[in-house]
Amino acid sequence: MTHLPSKSVAGELDILRQIRARVGAGRRTGMRLGIGDDCALLRLQAGEEVAVTTDLSIADRHFRLDWHTPESVGHRTLARGLSDLAAMGARPIAAFLSLGLPRALTVDSQNGTRSWADRFYDGLLALAATYKTPLGGGDLAESPIALADIVLVGAVPAGRALLRSGARAGDFLYVTGSIGGSAAGLEQLGHWNSAGDKKSARKIPSRLAEPLAPHLYPQPRISQGLWLQRRGVATAALDISDGLSTDLAHLCEESRVAAEVDAAALPVHPGASLAQALHGGEDYELLFAARATARLPRSIAGVAISRIGRIVARRREQPAVTLLTAEGPRPLEAQGWEHFS
Amino acid sequence: MTHLPSKSVAGELDILRQIRARVGAGRRTGMRLGIGDDCALLRLQAGEEVAVTTDLSIADRHFRLDWHTPESVGHRTLARGLSDLAAMGARPIAAFLSLGLPRALTVDSQNGTRSWADRFYDGLLALAATYKTPLGGGDLAESPIALADIVLVGAVPAGRALLRSGARAGDFLYVTGSIGGSAAGLEQLGHWNSAGDKKSARKIPSRLAEPLAPHLYPQPRISQGLWLQRRGVATAALDISDGLSTDLAHLCEESRVAAEVDAAALPVHPGASLAQALHGGEDYELLFAARATARLPRSIAGVAISRIGRIVARRREQPAVTLLTAEGPRPLEAQGWEHFS
Repeated sequence: MTHLPSKSVAGELDILRQIRARVGAGRRTGMRLGIGDDCALLRLQAGEEVAVTTDLSIADRHFRLDWHTPESVGHRTLARGLSDLAAMGARPIAAFLSLGLPRALTVDSQNGTRSWADRFYDGLLALAATYKTPLGGGDLAESPIALADIVLVGAVPAGRALLRSGARAGDFLYVTGSIGGSAAGLEQLGHWNSAGDKKSARKIPSRLAEPLAPHLYPQPRISQGLWLQRRGVATAALDISDGLSTDLAHLCEESRVAAEVDAAALPVHPGASLAQALHGGEDYELLFAARATARLPRSIAGVAISRIGRIVARRREQPAVTLLTAEGPRPLEAQGWEHFS
Repeated sequence: MTHLPSKSVAGELDILRQIRARVGAGRRTGMRLGIGDDCALLRLQAGEEVAVTTDLSIADRHFRLDWHTPESVGHRTLARGLSDLAAMGARPIAAFLSLGLPRALTVDSQNGTRSWADRFYDGLLALAATYKTPLGGGDLAESPIALADIVLVGAVPAGRALLRSGARAGDFLYVTGSIGGSAAGLEQLGHWNSAGDKKSARKIPSRLAEPLAPHLYPQPRISQGLWLQRRGVATAALDISDGLSTDLAHLCEESRVAAEVDAAALPVHPGASLAQALHGGEDYELLFAARATARLPRSIAGVAISRIGRIVARRREQPAVTLLTAEGPRPLEAQGWEHFS
């Protein structure tokens, strides 16, 4: 439902009324009806099809209330969904948020500090504004643990979406931006927090703002995905959410190919290790394949493009992904980052 | 994401592979690409717009693991979402499910009984098959509590969706089917379970199957919503999820009108009380307004249509909804059913 639910969380109606006022239902292109009815209504342009993705974030699994500020959790929740649209080359139309929160997180503190929920929406709506993605609705319920399920609806010209399944032997492999920065930032966030013993996240000091940014405020590559889709140069694409080793294995599985990655060519984020670049998830960079004859620019919309390897034919009993190093080739096992488990 | 996530719940990959096989990605009209990529891709027919709704169900708030069978929880999860589409007069295109489950619910028991998750999908996919709604994707994560967020995407001819905002003074009010049956069933379920002290739901005996059906297996009124949308007779509509008193207040608020309900005309479900019919939620019947000159049939697609009152002008300091009884009129306060709180 996208209507205002009945009283169930303290101040729930107030929260939803505020949100409804902040998102300005129906003003943006494509969203004809937002919060306030049984469904939101979205309109496509001629020849487009709908792209839909959902991502569930749960406290202590995808974020920690004692490490991450509410603004960062809100930002990261939406970034996960926008990144899936980017990976398809889709333009965002609207986001929908189902939020489950303990009652204490929905009320302002006694000294007047705004509630966790309010600050979560600050982070989410700031990123939504950057990518012109209105909040079309959602649901809010009391829950013993904090959780957020984000739904993104986008549009892409029919038949032109970037799929995982089109890579062919001989294609080159590329990534946008740099990788490993989110895992390195998470490690630093852990070190910084391990001293304290507290229930809510501390304010990030300015000296840590830059090294932690790839983890706390990852940027979905919407412009780069749209560029690839419009030029038609990518044969396959996905976003690096689980880590390069895991996501490249997905691409190989869906395309029924294998891949070689050149370790020396990886755009490792400053301060990150090779292991973090290979296995650290949540970078939300795009990983894509393109014909060897395709000419890729050095950057797209201000974000660097690096050629990191190539697609090869799949052979029985051979690893799907091989890492080429100075010491020779070795199999690259899928080892998705295990966050907090 | 709609891809197969990395290992995080015991047997998660197995579960998702099974689901992918069961839903038959891409076969149904409208869903061009299902589980297996960053997004699902859906195609509309010419002149349609997209309807989107999300509903979050959380253990001990929307269902109880010790009362509801997993099949019923799966059915009810999807029914909530389908009912929102019905209330807009939309046809379903695809459903997306984000599921958070404790590890124990994802594994088969030692004596070979199928897992809670498997049986949840049985219930959900059986209803999905009835309404030809493929599962287009979703997310699965380990969670300390059981929760399910359902997203429904539908389509409706542009400008013809049933909104909450079009009712005008002089319109008559109608409901489909009967109301109060879900609340009455929940009460019986509680009585039946109060004796035992156990962790998982007991099999429903056949003598209780019929009285509990409106609660355990509510039917979304998709056909009735489509009929109203195609005939263009409803000036406003929504589904009764929070209870007639609460949902009618929503309709009045969005339409800026008031309403009178004739207590004697309410189609109270056999075995339900008047209070359950007025305030019991989760009936998932449609509540709609139509011009007094409109001719409504006695039933639509086999479900009775009852005229229960009329829309009147909103007056300052008058109740939004008035109940007309044999003892005279009285204000009808919104008292949405409080499930398990």
